[in-house]
Amino acid sequence: MTTDAVDRAELGPSAALVADVFASACSSRAAFETITGKWASLVLLALAEGPHRFGELRRRVEGVSEKMLSQALHGLEREGLLTRTDHGSVPPRVDYALTPLGDDIARRLRELADLLQAAVPTLDESRAAYDAR
Amino acid sequence: MTTDAVDRAELGPSAALVADVFASACSSRAAFETITGKWASLVLLALAEGPHRFGELRRRVEGVSEKMLSQALHGLEREGLLTRTDHGSVPPRVDYALTPLGDDIARRLRELADLLQAAVPTLDESRAAYDAR
Repeated sequence: MTTDAVDRAELGPSAALVADVFASACSSRAAFETITGKWASLVLLALAEGPHRFGELRRRVEGVSEKMLSQALHGLEREGLLTRTDHGSVPPRVDYALTPLGDDIARRLRELADLLQAAVPTLDESRAAYDAR
Repeated sequence: MTTDAVDRAELGPSAALVADVFASACSSRAAFETITGKWASLVLLALAEGPHRFGELRRRVEGVSEKMLSQALHGLEREGLLTRTDHGSVPPRVDYALTPLGDDIARRLRELADLLQAAVPTLDESRAAYDAR
């Protein structure tokens, strides 16, 4: 829903259906904040490589705590970007995998990550210049 | 620098140059965290539409405070993703604009935002189902 959905109400119902990531009340804004979260974004990148178990994700995403990883997984599941499969086995085994929408998003995040990885010399130079001012 | 750069040191200097966004010590990871920050990502999206002044950005990015916007702008400038141009005029006028690398990144974030905006019905459905459990 757009921020000025109320103003536009007189234009008819379709006007309120325009999604806008800048609008704090829009679902796409909340989803954008979830997927760009510090840990959620890295979890998406890890799952882009295939399904992972909790412990595997903890090792793949350097520096994440159990609590933060758990929060990120719940947030992504709530947005419908990943599924959690409990195999009901002993010892317990739970797999996390991307949904089609999650996969779409993760692939775009991966492109962003590739761009940044390729830009490391530029980034380092820029930071050094900024800090030397 | 990769997380196992030390292990690979004996392979020669080039092994340490492999960038890895998952590695907490890698410059690309820090840049990834900056660009995916709650406000910085929306600032990049706004600047993808053209240069903006501070007040224009505040209005465009719904809900951002002066302090948070200022922090986001400094972070992005430090990574070399935007330039700050002070026209030295009275009243003061400062323009923020993307660098070529910033523009590349912002365009990819825009694709992500478009994807999410188009997925609003799916997102809303998924959240409702999750919250009803």
